[in-house]
Parts: sequence; C-alpha cells; structure tokens
Amino acid sequence: MRIGTERKIMANLYVALVHYPVVNKNGDIIASAVTNLDLHDISRAAKTYGVSAFFVVTPLSDQEILVDRILSHWVDGYGAQYNPIRRQALGLIRVTASLKDAVDRIAERDGQSPRLIATSASRRAGCISYRSCRELIGGDVPCLLLFGTAWGLSGDLVDGVDHILEPITGRGEYNHLSVRSAVSVILDRLTVKIS
Amino acid sequence: MRIGTERKIMANLYVALVHYPVVNKNGDIIASAVTNLDLHDISRAAKTYGVSAFFVVTPLSDQEILVDRILSHWVDGYGAQYNPIRRQALGLIRVTASLKDAVDRIAERDGQSPRLIATSASRRAGCISYRSCRELIGGDVPCLLLFGTAWGLSGDLVDGVDHILEPITGRGEYNHLSVRSAVSVILDRLTVKIS
Repeated sequence: MRIGTERKIMANLYVALVHYPVVNKNGDIIASAVTNLDLHDISRAAKTYGVSAFFVVTPLSDQEILVDRILSHWVDGYGAQYNPIRRQALGLIRVTASLKDAVDRIAERDGQSPRLIATSASRRAGCISYRSCRELIGGDVPCLLLFGTAWGLSGDLVDGVDHILEPITGRGEYNHLSVRSAVSVILDRLTVKIS
Repeated sequence: MRIGTERKIMANLYVALVHYPVVNKNGDIIASAVTNLDLHDISRAAKTYGVSAFFVVTPLSDQEILVDRILSHWVDGYGAQYNPIRRQALGLIRVTASLKDAVDRIAERDGQSPRLIATSASRRAGCISYRSCRELIGGDVPCLLLFGTAWGLSGDLVDGVDHILEPITGRGEYNHLSVRSAVSVILDRLTVKIS
C-alpha cells in the first residue's frame, strides 16, 4: 500500500552527471563522452521526481556543442512539437564546464551553495544511509546529487564532497547498474515512500 | 536505515521486454525495434535484483539476429573477456518470438506457468499495489513482469494478464520514465526494503 508521495515544502534538489573528473577502467582520470540516452533518461527521471535542474558537467567544448544540438531539437525545435512531454524533461538540462560552475549556478539561484552528495557503486567509509539522505534533502539547504559516468567519480572529487550516499544493493553481491538506472532508483528511494 | 535485503526463498522472478504487440504514438499496434541499451541496462538491473531470466520478445527475425550478435560479443566473444561483469548480466537474456514462448520456457523450467504481471505508465482499474505485488513474487508461483517498449503494451495483451501493477509515480503528475528506468525502479521497489 502506498503511504503517499512526499509533497512537503523542501529546498531544491539537483542532479549532476559528471563527465570530468571520472575514472576509466584502469583508474586513470579522464573526461568521458556524453551519451545521448543519458540526457533523455536522466532528464525524464529528474522531471518525474521533482528535481529542479539536471547539470551535465563536461569541460569539452565539442561535447557541450553536442548537448546544445540535442537540446535545440527537443526543447526548441521540431522535437518539442513532436513530443512536448520530452521537452519538459530535457528543459531541465543545464550544461556546465565544471562542477564548480554548477554549484555557482545553484548558489546564484537559491542564495546558498548546495550540499554536495556523491553517489558510488562502492561502499566507502562514512557513507550515509538513504534515511539520512532523505532528511538532508527534506531540509532547507539545496542538495546536489553527483553521479559519475565511465567507471565513476574521481577519488579527489569524492574526497571534497559533504556526504557520500551508500551504494545501491539489490538481492545479491552484483550491483552494476547503468548510471541511468542508478539515478532513477536513487531518486525513487530518496523522494517517494512506498510501504 | 536499511532494514535488510530480502533473501528468503521465493519462486523465480522473470522480466520480459515486449516489442510486439505494443502501440505507437497513435495507438496502432506495431512491432518495435530492439534498442541496444535496453539489453544492457535491463540485464544489469535484472542481475542486480536477482531476476532469473530476462526475455526479449520480438517476432522479427532480423531483430532476433541483432540481439544474438550483441550477445555473441558480450557473452561469448571479446566483450566477455573485456568486461566479465557485463557478461554475467547479458547472460540472463533469452530471445523469444512471442510472449507465449517465454511463458512456455518458464513452465518448462519451473514446472508451472508464471503469473503474468503487466506494468503500465497509466493507472488502470484494478491495478495492484507494490505491497500486493511483493507478496505475489514472494510466493511459490513464478512471476513474469511485462514491460512494453514504444508507447506501451497493447490493450489486448494487458487484458489477458493476471495482474496489472500500479504505475510509478514520483513527486508530481509527470511520470514519463524510460522503460530502462521503469524496470530498475520497479525491481527495486519489489525486491528491496528501504526504510
């Protein structure tokens, strides 16, 4: 039985999909390429779960141009008429060259910097539970959830955040979800109560 | 606080991604094309949440060939060495020409036909709650969760199932998740308890 979706007033919740700095399979720091379906799937999840903006973080100018082209089709161009529902979702996307730029945009909008909450598929010391994270995002400080592409957020980036959310576990040891799935499940766990 | 992942003995849980019969934007019944990333994302979610097999239902022989080529790379070919973790997930995929074929495969394996549980983004009369669905999949009859591609499962197909699961709702009226996100969220809601 559904107890009910949480609708109380809360500070803004944001999501960032980080393409740099992330690590590759060998642990080297890289800038990953933008994946078209990440933009669609994550913006649709962001819209569904009441996220205020979805930051696509990439320092690569050709990738920024790519995202702008996709958005110009779906938000302003033919795609917006063909599928207005998709437009609502993709309209949440903001491209920034760095995580700091995303933080600055939020600070400018909300009058205060967001708490940075990193996600990871690996369990790290001091990570917070979903319950604790729900309390954070129900508070009066905006929160920015960080998701890494490729093999995940760089260690240095994670060392600098305010909180690390515990990994998603399913029904066994395997927890290798796509970032698209991980964003959806984490937003569901953090914003909807299902009994 | 996590109460704990459910690990009790239960009958097998299966997922089917249906490419026919589904409807297009105009409500016409069509056979949709297979999307590569559906195979990856949904098999990874299936593996994470303890699903016993992931049926890709398509009557189109060229699409079956496409899936077989993808699987031969990731399950048997170079991809299996490059990324053994991906192999474990994609190894759950079974291609069948029809939903009936998937049901027959399950009946042959488990000695009884599965309950058919349709998912939908629209609320339909008589749909069951997540709690009820958890009880079903915790029982001793195998369950097959059906997900539609394109604009969703055909009405005739839905009319013939045992149960329809209530739609995912987030924090508002918008609930247009991708099928990749929907599978992940529904498996998470049905198999993991988060307090």
